[in-house]
Amino acid sequence: MIAVILAGGSGTRFWPLSRKDRPKQLVRLFGQRVMIAQTFERLARVVSQENVYIVCGEHLVERILDAIPELDPEHLIVEPSARNTAPAILLASAVIEARHGADVPVGIFPSDHFIGKPELFASTVEAASQVARREDAIVTLGISPTRPETGYGYILRDVEEDPDEHGSSPVDAFVEKPNVEKALEYLSHGHYFWNAGMFFFRPMTMKGEFKRQEPLFYEVYNDLVHAYEQGTFADVLPQRFEQLEKISIDYAIMEGAQEVRVVPSLFPWSDVGHWAALDEVCDANGEGNVIEAERVSLHDVKDSIFYSEEGSQRRIAAVGLDGMVVVDTRDAVLVMPKDRAQDVRAIVDMLPDDER
Amino acid sequence: MIAVILAGGSGTRFWPLSRKDRPKQLVRLFGQRVMIAQTFERLARVVSQENVYIVCGEHLVERILDAIPELDPEHLIVEPSARNTAPAILLASAVIEARHGADVPVGIFPSDHFIGKPELFASTVEAASQVARREDAIVTLGISPTRPETGYGYILRDVEEDPDEHGSSPVDAFVEKPNVEKALEYLSHGHYFWNAGMFFFRPMTMKGEFKRQEPLFYEVYNDLVHAYEQGTFADVLPQRFEQLEKISIDYAIMEGAQEVRVVPSLFPWSDVGHWAALDEVCDANGEGNVIEAERVSLHDVKDSIFYSEEGSQRRIAAVGLDGMVVVDTRDAVLVMPKDRAQDVRAIVDMLPDDER
Repeated sequence: MIAVILAGGSGTRFWPLSRKDRPKQLVRLFGQRVMIAQTFERLARVVSQENVYIVCGEHLVERILDAIPELDPEHLIVEPSARNTAPAILLASAVIEARHGADVPVGIFPSDHFIGKPELFASTVEAASQVARREDAIVTLGISPTRPETGYGYILRDVEEDPDEHGSSPVDAFVEKPNVEKALEYLSHGHYFWNAGMFFFRPMTMKGEFKRQEPLFYEVYNDLVHAYEQGTFADVLPQRFEQLEKISIDYAIMEGAQEVRVVPSLFPWSDVGHWAALDEVCDANGEGNVIEAERVSLHDVKDSIFYSEEGSQRRIAAVGLDGMVVVDTRDAVLVMPKDRAQDVRAIVDMLPDDER
Repeated sequence: MIAVILAGGSGTRFWPLSRKDRPKQLVRLFGQRVMIAQTFERLARVVSQENVYIVCGEHLVERILDAIPELDPEHLIVEPSARNTAPAILLASAVIEARHGADVPVGIFPSDHFIGKPELFASTVEAASQVARREDAIVTLGISPTRPETGYGYILRDVEEDPDEHGSSPVDAFVEKPNVEKALEYLSHGHYFWNAGMFFFRPMTMKGEFKRQEPLFYEVYNDLVHAYEQGTFADVLPQRFEQLEKISIDYAIMEGAQEVRVVPSLFPWSDVGHWAALDEVCDANGEGNVIEAERVSLHDVKDSIFYSEEGSQRRIAAVGLDGMVVVDTRDAVLVMPKDRAQDVRAIVDMLPDDER
């Protein structure tokens, strides 16, 4: 199996730590390494290091190689521009097909998510890749929800059909982010899963779906494989890639695919979508405080999050806080209640360009 | 008249801006200059520069001369140790008597308070000095309260007696910091005033009170004046000063003095006792935010205080705050609700020595 990490994301929800030229996948939010290095390590343990590829933009190449010294530079697949996940997956699938053939199972993984229990993750990935190898299906992982989350899309499995020996079932529907009532319903229903953006397929299968659903994508796909074999890939890619619509793989392919299966997954997972999500991925102390900082002095503070940029000698001090987030970096400090963590974008929007 | 600024205070309530070696009087909280320089400027306008003295400890001499380049170093009266206000005022009174005679009115002023309307302040000080010159009294300024403040001591004027032509009345009582009910009563009563720690007296009068109430102080006083005249002041001071009890002028002298008068004062005043007091001394913007910082980005924030150390290039950003204080200095950031600003001490108490 080949693992492909999509590292095209940019984002502002982790300002002031993440910036335009240092998106979330390249910051260290928790653990020892930056997010994408943690993802790489986790996958290298499942498929072995030489079977991990990374898709990213030109501007991140150097930073990614710095962050993952063990990555073979030949395994960086560089997008000429950021065009959402469908073009990125097309590019990855075409390169994998040219290098490894159209039958090898490919797993697509976001670069900046949290995953706990790596052994459980490994066995789940192994199961999904078995299904993708055997069936002519695109396989997705469905995370068992642990709360009525309104920030994720959901996957409903086909309850008419019993799961196969790998636990996979056909997908009945992909469901948009719900409101709270719906989310509560999904949680108690038992057959709705969080869509974690992880997909498994053989290049042949994905190519077939492009042919059926996105003829231009299919044409570009074939041209890229051909160019790769001819040694003209670098010349052909930029112009052909620009022709692809900026569209997500969910809209372009998944929702209309002939056969999609879901493997229910029980490992802890979070997309770590904003600062307050550190609650989901870091251990809190006895007062409910998450402290990812060297020098912190708290008096009568609970259920709050403190983050200081690595290597910082600055002290964060707080008195009488409840449910707050304080982020301290070299050149900025951010303070907000946890339930406003989604609104960091409003700050970034008002910043001068050089501070974004 | 001679103006004496007491700059002996140390304090932690403005951590992380104020530190052990840079107490509140030497920080710039608002306006263009550090607190003691603002006090010096204000008094120089009332009594002229060459009539202003400053009492401070050895460790602050250099910083004070840096902060007030216009100060004649000969006008620094250096305490051998910090022993509260009674010994400091004794020292000042003895030096003034030796230099200027026992009849010149002396005004004592804290170094780190806020005073608005400088012309009104000047005329009030002028009135108090007239009373001190004429009567054998110690004169104090009583600030007309504008709210039921529980953080200040109060002065009750003698309501039996009509004010004299300078507005002064005898003092009936000095009253400790009240609870809220008492404070409300004092506010509506109309004859209670805030004790702002400003006193006016002739050295002769103060000496007489020392003789009556604190015989050892009287002895030291006379020895210091004598030593000054003999040119042995520097030799005599350290040993004699150490013999003085660490006691405030209120307890040692004011509460038991034979004649104490109060001049009601209408200029805006605050002792700026903690970070939240910036509300009282700085203008707030339309959302009620006080911003003493260069780079601040706020989204949906009201009634909060943002302070950044002078010259800082760091940005303070906040989302969804109400009634909070954020202080950012070179090596620390402090976050707390306004109503917890008194508790900064708890933070300082837990800091390693080198960060206090």
